[in-house]
Amino acid sequence: MNQTNTSETINMGHGSGGELTRKLIDQLIFKAFDNPYLNDKHDGSIVNVKGKIAISTDSFVISPIFFKGGNIGELAVNGTVNDVAMCGAIPKFLSLAFIIEEGFNYNELVDIIESIKNTAKRCGVLIITGDTKVVEKGKGDKIFINTTGFGEVHPNAAINSRNIKVGDKIIVNNNIAQHGIAIMSQREGLQFESDIVSDTTNLNLITQDLLDTFGTKIHFFRDPTRGGLGSVLHEIATDCSLGIDIFEKNLPIDKQVAAACEMLGLDPLYVANEGVFLTIADQHIANDVVSSINKFDNGKNATILGEITEMHPNKVVLHSSVGGKRIVSPLVGEQLPRIC
Amino acid sequence: MNQTNTSETINMGHGSGGELTRKLIDQLIFKAFDNPYLNDKHDGSIVNVKGKIAISTDSFVISPIFFKGGNIGELAVNGTVNDVAMCGAIPKFLSLAFIIEEGFNYNELVDIIESIKNTAKRCGVLIITGDTKVVEKGKGDKIFINTTGFGEVHPNAAINSRNIKVGDKIIVNNNIAQHGIAIMSQREGLQFESDIVSDTTNLNLITQDLLDTFGTKIHFFRDPTRGGLGSVLHEIATDCSLGIDIFEKNLPIDKQVAAACEMLGLDPLYVANEGVFLTIADQHIANDVVSSINKFDNGKNATILGEITEMHPNKVVLHSSVGGKRIVSPLVGEQLPRIC
Repeated sequence: MNQTNTSETINMGHGSGGELTRKLIDQLIFKAFDNPYLNDKHDGSIVNVKGKIAISTDSFVISPIFFKGGNIGELAVNGTVNDVAMCGAIPKFLSLAFIIEEGFNYNELVDIIESIKNTAKRCGVLIITGDTKVVEKGKGDKIFINTTGFGEVHPNAAINSRNIKVGDKIIVNNNIAQHGIAIMSQREGLQFESDIVSDTTNLNLITQDLLDTFGTKIHFFRDPTRGGLGSVLHEIATDCSLGIDIFEKNLPIDKQVAAACEMLGLDPLYVANEGVFLTIADQHIANDVVSSINKFDNGKNATILGEITEMHPNKVVLHSSVGGKRIVSPLVGEQLPRIC
Repeated sequence: MNQTNTSETINMGHGSGGELTRKLIDQLIFKAFDNPYLNDKHDGSIVNVKGKIAISTDSFVISPIFFKGGNIGELAVNGTVNDVAMCGAIPKFLSLAFIIEEGFNYNELVDIIESIKNTAKRCGVLIITGDTKVVEKGKGDKIFINTTGFGEVHPNAAINSRNIKVGDKIIVNNNIAQHGIAIMSQREGLQFESDIVSDTTNLNLITQDLLDTFGTKIHFFRDPTRGGLGSVLHEIATDCSLGIDIFEKNLPIDKQVAAACEMLGLDPLYVANEGVFLTIADQHIANDVVSSINKFDNGKNATILGEITEMHPNKVVLHSSVGGKRIVSPLVGEQLPRIC
């Protein structure tokens, strides 16, 4: 058994917990994420925190792992950072766990780790603990990544579906359906020519700014990833036992994305997003929230999408551009598997 | 596409983020792990903590998922709880993330979740946030589980390889090589008759008791899982830049396990454990540490295995029962893949 050639592909020995695992961790992972927490090399890391801590976990199984606008590593950082941010918290630390399929290209792992490093830096989070497992060829799919994130809840935050009130406005920061269509355009058996790129990005800087400025007048945040805007709005309506009205004319969507949805027979309301989030805020600050979000690169298309109503509790109603209405049901099965 | 029959197998829709995902989470997961943190149904959970927090993450890819003495769910709780405990912390919370292969038996998932619930209860930890992804048949292997654990560092703890001193004793709590041999006896193509069961268990109650009693005189904890005792001792020697002497006559091992190792040509020093941990403590309390560990069910075989020496820094030397010496090198490649 030749265990010395580690430069080309990942083999089962990299997941054994022995010398190859140690080398992989020392030479690749610790080097990339150099920080005092990680360098203790213990079974875990010790951090100092105080007060309310938001914790969120996500596994990323996207296919393909490299796509227009990003890769699985970038997604794994942004996705969990955003989930922590949606709790009204300031993300601080991430754990990072890889499940790698035997035979995976070592250089692709290097690229993914480089991407994780840069994304974490942009988000302002540290990778403080991790794990690497290897499974036999055909028992995984290249690489799966789990990240778990920890953040300190913003002192001014009161983000809770129980705080959503009738009359509150729903603000969206950016064009929808971008990520799902970008992935779909590259998916095997479905490829089509397009310039559409994933919108994967970190949203924590915007949410922090909104909480700094508006505090408890921000009632709720949520990022509609898997299941899309439609599923998430339905969840919110159910959770707060109120109704939601949204207006098609206000739905921000790129023309090319809308055309692709039409071509594929997809409702953009159910297509996954990665850089989109909803703010539900007191109606009196809604326009100011839009202006605040507009200051950010990924907030240029911010708009008021709809509002909370006491009519039709637990239901989401879409008011179409031509005057009709329809109920937005949750997505039942799958629209596109392994989108994140 | 028939999406209504959810009672038999997991399908891609369960990972879509839509209605099927929601049902799976509400009916199975929230029901099992009912607690106020989880029930907020947000993107993450918010907990109150203070001081130093230990964080550890692990993905579990063991095959087979049900084995003598446990299953992947029990392992995923114990494994991460133990890693947090090895940091000198009291485990409090776990995140839980599933990557499920399409077609996985729903009832097996129910059994695994039941097991996670019971194990978490025994450990005294709450499952506070989670994630479920589904991958196509042939792109995973039944189920992979990631858990990330959080614990409050014990106020009396000073667990750090830098605190290990010459003369310190190394105490082991239980028989080694049990888990690896149990899994191996059930591994396809390798099955053999044996009564050997995995030693998977939680160690946090013992480590907490030791810190309560001996405080900073406990210098280090570590559980030798993947890579076995040999690899972990080598890591410790390297990390503290000191030498380690261990004595074969003190190595606790079950006769049946020793016989299986001989039959399979395996060195028990490199066979994985799940319920074994090392305590490195001031030499003057070593016997009292053994007595303390003996009080626990999984500490009946506790013994002083060896000691820290200034001779041969960075090296582990095994003194054999018949008088010889040999250097214990780290495991290089794999001994048995997917052992945890």
